[in-house]
Amino acid sequence: MLILGIDPGLTRTGFGLIRLNQRHEPELVHYEVIDSTAVSSTSSRLIFLFDHLTSLIETYQPTESAMEKLFFQRNISTAMAVSEARGVAALCLAQHGLALNEYTPNEVKQSVSGSGKADKKQIQSMVKLLLNLTEIPQPDDAADALAVALCHASHLNLRNLME
Amino acid sequence: MLILGIDPGLTRTGFGLIRLNQRHEPELVHYEVIDSTAVSSTSSRLIFLFDHLTSLIETYQPTESAMEKLFFQRNISTAMAVSEARGVAALCLAQHGLALNEYTPNEVKQSVSGSGKADKKQIQSMVKLLLNLTEIPQPDDAADALAVALCHASHLNLRNLME
Repeated sequence: MLILGIDPGLTRTGFGLIRLNQRHEPELVHYEVIDSTAVSSTSSRLIFLFDHLTSLIETYQPTESAMEKLFFQRNISTAMAVSEARGVAALCLAQHGLALNEYTPNEVKQSVSGSGKADKKQIQSMVKLLLNLTEIPQPDDAADALAVALCHASHLNLRNLME
Repeated sequence: MLILGIDPGLTRTGFGLIRLNQRHEPELVHYEVIDSTAVSSTSSRLIFLFDHLTSLIETYQPTESAMEKLFFQRNISTAMAVSEARGVAALCLAQHGLALNEYTPNEVKQSVSGSGKADKKQIQSMVKLLLNLTEIPQPDDAADALAVALCHASHLNLRNLME
């Protein structure tokens, strides 16, 4: 069971891949962040994301995917631009037969740290702890993407327990 | 010169194709509206749009494209869902080497009717008039998409005049 977590942003998108081993424990497979700050137009930014995500899916062949839901943003222009990227990511997952599992930032916090009120640093520390890492993954978007993947892993484990 | 106009919506997306003839006058080539009301999930909706737009571009091979900019929406959830569709449409255009020309609803109105204050009915009547049609294209999203294409046509004609 290989889970791809995605944290789409305006210029940076984080990807985190984890595996659930036979004891249902999460293990780190890969993480990375793409930065399209240097990419000038909307079109190029979306192509860049699409091509990168396609290649990532084809390389690692995840069986599950999860994406962070966009939280209410005061800046509607930012919200719309991030949604464009989210749409492209969702398309790419669907093209590879991956269902879109979405979690709000609060669900991710709750699941990873046990509290919806945990701050960014605490979540990052929990990601490090849960994946047995020696350091917190950098940049932040990578840790965020891994947190979404871990949140989905918990939901999958819970679902398996219930069945 | 074949121009594809797109008016992306939450469930319905209008497409309008016009040609500029040798006298730089617009002529209707094709219009249609896809309706994803019956499509249940976000993923399916985005795949539906992507596949349809890809096939439309490959069939007609437009050389120019234009899309209506999303106007400020009071409902941020709607704005974000429409933006996801806009992102997918922009990706699709970019994959076919089509530059993204975006116009606000006011720019479209101004360009098609001469007034930014024209109402929907007036715009539709102008689309019918400018394209020498016997009836207003239906549904509304088709007329809207043709209006965006006509707006881009005016901008292209103006640009040519200036050169």
